[in-house]
Amino acid sequence: MSQTKTGSAATTEAPAKEPRGARRKRETRQRLMKAALELMAARGMDGVAINEITEAADVGFGSFYNHFDSKEAIHAELMREVLNSFGETMDHISNNLEDPAEILSTAVRYAVQRSADNPVWGRFLIQTALSADILSGLGQYMLRDIQRGIASGRFKLKDPLMAFTSVGGTVIGALTAQMEFAPADSTAKKVAQQLGLNLENIPERTASTVLQILGLTNEQADEVAHRPLPPVELRDSLF
Amino acid sequence: MSQTKTGSAATTEAPAKEPRGARRKRETRQRLMKAALELMAARGMDGVAINEITEAADVGFGSFYNHFDSKEAIHAELMREVLNSFGETMDHISNNLEDPAEILSTAVRYAVQRSADNPVWGRFLIQTALSADILSGLGQYMLRDIQRGIASGRFKLKDPLMAFTSVGGTVIGALTAQMEFAPADSTAKKVAQQLGLNLENIPERTASTVLQILGLTNEQADEVAHRPLPPVELRDSLF
Repeated sequence: MSQTKTGSAATTEAPAKEPRGARRKRETRQRLMKAALELMAARGMDGVAINEITEAADVGFGSFYNHFDSKEAIHAELMREVLNSFGETMDHISNNLEDPAEILSTAVRYAVQRSADNPVWGRFLIQTALSADILSGLGQYMLRDIQRGIASGRFKLKDPLMAFTSVGGTVIGALTAQMEFAPADSTAKKVAQQLGLNLENIPERTASTVLQILGLTNEQADEVAHRPLPPVELRDSLF
Repeated sequence: MSQTKTGSAATTEAPAKEPRGARRKRETRQRLMKAALELMAARGMDGVAINEITEAADVGFGSFYNHFDSKEAIHAELMREVLNSFGETMDHISNNLEDPAEILSTAVRYAVQRSADNPVWGRFLIQTALSADILSGLGQYMLRDIQRGIASGRFKLKDPLMAFTSVGGTVIGALTAQMEFAPADSTAKKVAQQLGLNLENIPERTASTVLQILGLTNEQADEVAHRPLPPVELRDSLF
């Protein structure tokens, strides 16, 4: 009889209880991801301990392991999340544009502007680009866009590896510069201003520079880099 | 009399004892610096605890504070050391060459080759370039070299900030690529080879790319980038 009662209680409670449990689990996982993202963006994966993540997420230490096997696992999951969301945005951009130069220009302007608006995102993007296998992270999207431009004849490269390195480095440099210039008391900004450097429209100027590295003339590159931006849909539960 | 004796003992012992103490102190400081360098190159300053530095250096935790006020202080000292040694090398190079393009080319080839030979040095250089104020680190030498080239008319720039960002980013990208390609089981290398990318002479190709960003033609840049390297004297107690 007690068995029947337990069974019946389980049966009546299950439909309500199960979703609640699943929702809680998802929410806890999300809190852990957000906490790890902030901490790892600032210090890198190796600089963060699991108990710091659980404390920041206000979750018991042990329950970390209900969601992730290790620190490496949550870091890999964050990379996948940042890259998937970036990749979806890139797919959206390239499905709506024809010109490979405009596709790359739009992606670059988007990444540079977004890193200024959201430095955690930008720092994480830089870290993943530099620490992971270059060609399995952010680089894969850039490489795809560059290869498309080569295939169509829009980009003319004598040294594809160096063009790729230079384009990637220029984008990372611009992401870094945007974040350095962002704070009100930025030293880099003061120095740059003392040197008389122009700090306006960095996303467009980065896109133009990248296109010149890929063989467009100054004038061609500037024209493409200043075309109106198509609307970009963001899918970003984490940010 | 006991006073005289103490005095005389101090007089006879002091010349031998003082240097020994000073030497020990210097050696301990050096061990702490080397340990911090290795750890911070791998994980960044924030990712390393003081007790990890003292353990790796085989020094008592407390004696850290005989040498440095904080983790920030030893990190700043390491940056100064890496940058000073790099700066001395750069000064040596620029004192022995006339052409601003050749000076920058030599500096770039030196940095890229050295990061392949000594990944700890390379990783630290990348970190300091990205984490500190851009224009107070590695960037100051690049900026100086680029400004010299502008003044002499050798470099022609429409957008100095973007040229600077792109040159810096290209160098950092090449340093990263060299270190990614270095291990025998390198994934990045395998992918690059599958794509048919040429992995030879990256220091020279980086220099050529940088010079093209600064307005030299492909042919001019290649010629400068392949000039014989002047001998470089290294002053590097830490590496």
